Amino acid sequence: MNIGLDMMGGDFSPLEAVRGIQLYLNASSTPVTLFLLGDEAQINPLLKEYSIPPQSVKVIHAPQVIGMNEHPTRALKEKQQSSIAIGFHLLAGGKMDAFISAGNTGAMLVGALYSLKPIEGIQRPTISTIIPKENGKTGVLLDVGLNSDCKPENLNQFAILGSLYSKHILGIDQPRVGLLNIGEEEGKGNLLAQATYPLLKENNQIHFIGNIEGRDLLLDKADVMVCEGFTGNVILKLAESLFGITQQKQIHHPYFDRFDFENYGGTPLLGVTKPVIIGHGISRGRSFLNMITLAQKMIETDLLGKMKESFLS
Amino acid sequence: MNIGLDMMGGDFSPLEAVRGIQLYLNASSTPVTLFLLGDEAQINPLLKEYSIPPQSVKVIHAPQVIGMNEHPTRALKEKQQSSIAIGFHLLAGGKMDAFISAGNTGAMLVGALYSLKPIEGIQRPTISTIIPKENGKTGVLLDVGLNSDCKPENLNQFAILGSLYSKHILGIDQPRVGLLNIGEEEGKGNLLAQATYPLLKENNQIHFIGNIEGRDLLLDKADVMVCEGFTGNVILKLAESLFGITQQKQIHHPYFDRFDFENYGGTPLLGVTKPVIIGHGISRGRSFLNMITLAQKMIETDLLGKMKESFLS
Repeated sequence: MNIGLDMMGGDFSPLEAVRGIQLYLNASSTPVTLFLLGDEAQINPLLKEYSIPPQSVKVIHAPQVIGMNEHPTRALKEKQQSSIAIGFHLLAGGKMDAFISAGNTGAMLVGALYSLKPIEGIQRPTISTIIPKENGKTGVLLDVGLNSDCKPENLNQFAILGSLYSKHILGIDQPRVGLLNIGEEEGKGNLLAQATYPLLKENNQIHFIGNIEGRDLLLDKADVMVCEGFTGNVILKLAESLFGITQQKQIHHPYFDRFDFENYGGTPLLGVTKPVIIGHGISRGRSFLNMITLAQKMIETDLLGKMKESFLS
Repeated sequence: MNIGLDMMGGDFSPLEAVRGIQLYLNASSTPVTLFLLGDEAQINPLLKEYSIPPQSVKVIHAPQVIGMNEHPTRALKEKQQSSIAIGFHLLAGGKMDAFISAGNTGAMLVGALYSLKPIEGIQRPTISTIIPKENGKTGVLLDVGLNSDCKPENLNQFAILGSLYSKHILGIDQPRVGLLNIGEEEGKGNLLAQATYPLLKENNQIHFIGNIEGRDLLLDKADVMVCEGFTGNVILKLAESLFGITQQKQIHHPYFDRFDFENYGGTPLLGVTKPVIIGHGISRGRSFLNMITLAQKMIETDLLGKMKESFLS
């Protein structure tokens, strides 16, 4: 399998990407070829310095870079020789099986939506985050910012996508789906939640357990937690800042260590036709390692195939 | 001044209410009469047991109790001799200057809205929560659940109410107002946030500093943080659960201690014509103490008068 990696994306690239590749290749015995997209003059010396075996990687020169603050659509159009533009070209053309970048998030989203298209039947692709449960288990929350205004059917589809992710990637057999809401009983909540509840209840592709509240997010109540991207993004960033605060205050505890986003690496863009993983701008070696591992798992489990099946009707 | 206290509200009443009264009277030198509403057969022996000075309190017998799970509107209508119904009757009639209850939240809201009415010019009263900032300062977040679907003008009014609360109750001179959003720049966010931004920007009654994100909630970026009640309620309950988790895992740190809701006691209902404070169902003595202190401060600072002035146009 061929996994593509944007070597120019993120604040610490290409160095930290190379470190991640080294960590990955040291740990993995899967026959994978990593396609490394970026400026070969910067990449090649680092590959040598970090003793990356040449047979495991293939450098694809991309002379242009899309900056972190560039306008996504404009940058993608004007910089067709950028690592992100070339990455999506190779992914869409079937030369690569997954594409990872810690670069300009907007450009990754625009690139994915335009060059890959959503899976047939899916109205809106989504991004998710891992939520560390207080008892050691792992939940998934979605959407976390791609869709700030949603319709009930969007949330219903997120529930299916999140359930498949939870099952095949996180290994949870029959993931419990909870609707994030501000009351426990059916009929509670804002207009969106009220209208979404019956759709989830009638959806036989998921195991819906009802409403969950803010207090249930960190508890082992639901494995898949569904909301629109406004609330989800606020929760994601709050959780990230909580990790930063505990670090800064030197409050050390294994539970808070699990809030370190580097453990998870990046968020897959769920609902498009190929595996795309978007990393944090401040990704370091461990994040890149985890993103490559996630891409491998998405390919091995044929997660995308399962998603396509689910939306065939 | 006369502060009314529902002695039957909350899971541990009337005992914990009496404990709170004792804590309050031991600490305060302000000439306050506490009106104690509830079943005198239960209250009087406790007052004796806890040596509450008779001249500081006035027991008002209320033979009925509205249970925590009763339907608010129906219960208020059918139980006119309940502590909550009598409380609002005395508050509306000017016999009491504030009313506190840790009882049925819905009944408190319905009672307040029907017997007191909103301040003229205010479209929707609101409830808020205290947010402990990581540097020791104190922020206020609103709405936290009373208004799960909002219009831009609602949020604009919450910003004014929150600013007055922050200034007069929390002692912050020129409170910085932030719009909770999922991006930093103007124009970002969901439709509500996009439409609210210009209103806040043009509002010369507040000191608007722009958008804040989830990661800024616990940082000292804005003193008053405005959002609709869905997101706000999720944050409130998430913060409460965080305290519970740190307790349960024995992660002790002064910062997390500040997440203990008992420090704040209850949330004032902002935007109605008299001070009303709604406590947590599991309030104990310290919560009741803090709610009485808050009521006293709201009366002393004439917070309600200042709110009325702000909405005269």
